[in-house]
Amino acid sequence: MTVVSCRQIAPRVDDPASSRAATVRAVHAAVDDGAEIIVLPELATSGYVFQSAAEGAAAAITRGDEVFDAWAGAVGAVGGVVIGGFAERSDDGVVYNSAAVVDGSGVLAVYRKIHLWDRELRWFAAGDAPPPVVRTSLGAVGVAICYDLEFPEVTRHLALAGAELIAVPTNWPLVDRPPGERPPEVVIAMAAARVNRVPLACCDRTGTERGQRWTEGTTIIGIDGWPLAESGPGEAPATARIDLERSRDKRLAEHNDAFADRRPELYGAVQRTAHTA
Amino acid sequence: MTVVSCRQIAPRVDDPASSRAATVRAVHAAVDDGAEIIVLPELATSGYVFQSAAEGAAAAITRGDEVFDAWAGAVGAVGGVVIGGFAERSDDGVVYNSAAVVDGSGVLAVYRKIHLWDRELRWFAAGDAPPPVVRTSLGAVGVAICYDLEFPEVTRHLALAGAELIAVPTNWPLVDRPPGERPPEVVIAMAAARVNRVPLACCDRTGTERGQRWTEGTTIIGIDGWPLAESGPGEAPATARIDLERSRDKRLAEHNDAFADRRPELYGAVQRTAHTA
Repeated sequence: MTVVSCRQIAPRVDDPASSRAATVRAVHAAVDDGAEIIVLPELATSGYVFQSAAEGAAAAITRGDEVFDAWAGAVGAVGGVVIGGFAERSDDGVVYNSAAVVDGSGVLAVYRKIHLWDRELRWFAAGDAPPPVVRTSLGAVGVAICYDLEFPEVTRHLALAGAELIAVPTNWPLVDRPPGERPPEVVIAMAAARVNRVPLACCDRTGTERGQRWTEGTTIIGIDGWPLAESGPGEAPATARIDLERSRDKRLAEHNDAFADRRPELYGAVQRTAHTA
Repeated sequence: MTVVSCRQIAPRVDDPASSRAATVRAVHAAVDDGAEIIVLPELATSGYVFQSAAEGAAAAITRGDEVFDAWAGAVGAVGGVVIGGFAERSDDGVVYNSAAVVDGSGVLAVYRKIHLWDRELRWFAAGDAPPPVVRTSLGAVGVAICYDLEFPEVTRHLALAGAELIAVPTNWPLVDRPPGERPPEVVIAMAAARVNRVPLACCDRTGTERGQRWTEGTTIIGIDGWPLAESGPGEAPATARIDLERSRDKRLAEHNDAFADRRPELYGAVQRTAHTA
């Protein structure tokens, strides 16, 4: 069993140094609580609601930034892994909405978000590589960021590529929903977990930022599609113990298997669109 | 606005003639209630829990069966459309789990289920053509059957192919779920509706059959992913008025579009699997 914990912190867009420090505190706190896989929000080191591309670029850090050394230092002794969002400045100065996967040895992988939401298009370039499945000592961790989740191809791709857990750093802007309903993003994550037989750990943020309210919808979902842990409002973490090896078994019934039963040769429009895009 | 109605009837596997008659009564009742697009359960003309392939074959009918003339007769005067499941015997004697799309002119299309669940594999051959989008006078209707829904490629394919409504005849065997949760199939349908900006009309069945209980989960879902109508237990219909033209607009925000934002060239594993299957 692996202890997965999402830390729904509140980055400060007007104070990136403070935000970075808050991520380090959050990772330490998670380790102290026994967490092994720790998920932080999207853009945890920078905040989200930039006012200009220049502000975004100023908050961006490279994958060599010392904040990742600090995450590595915090989880190294316990063999843990951190997946957290950051504004990335590439070697050639391009700014991305990225997520780092870090263990005690340092940065294992960086994923650059491929579906940008709304004003993100003003500050960020879109990534041009598929969401990765990162082989860690705790299991194969797939990574997607926020709006990526609204493309069922992404979660399917990650699961088919062997993800035993999908970590989803998010900043979910609060949207209307009917009374009593879960956030729509959580419904989408529940369905993705169930049809792919893979747990999802979606880490949202808290703290109103320049008037933007957030869903505070952090949820960890098991392979049957039901929530295992939810943060609710504020900074309370969501933590669940998960047997990641169960994700390798896609059987649904004696004669059924969620992956073997696929008929990709018949999913015509998806492929046609893919081929002509 | 189009009135869409699901009729959660109880076919009788031991009496196919009675089941066929019940479908005709259901279509008439729906027309009397003002319905324009009428969805019936999976295998509505035959029942589901066969005891042998011979029993399934004996209950199977051709697409020329008079029951479809009766459906056509019932909806012809109001310009309606029926989507209903039936056990199909092909011209060469193969038995399929199929759905017919019928309007006043007769059978417009037949879809043969491509993902067979559990013991269906004993009685039915799987279809070898993609789920269709059928152009009707009321709009473009995509069709999937029951377990098909658990493959997000299917709903994506139908939406990309232009479906303005996805009709899903189902027989959902009752499965455990946490207290207070919707049936898992409904969660999957809600996510499919939202990410594809297309309404779904899932018509389940009622009536215990040879000890098999059903979810009685009939639900019509709007393009935002929220249920518009649910049957609950028994034969109560679920009916909703839907503006099908809204399904043509995939915009999510000023700069975002659920379809235009796709990056199919980066959904690697899905395509790889498709190409090697």
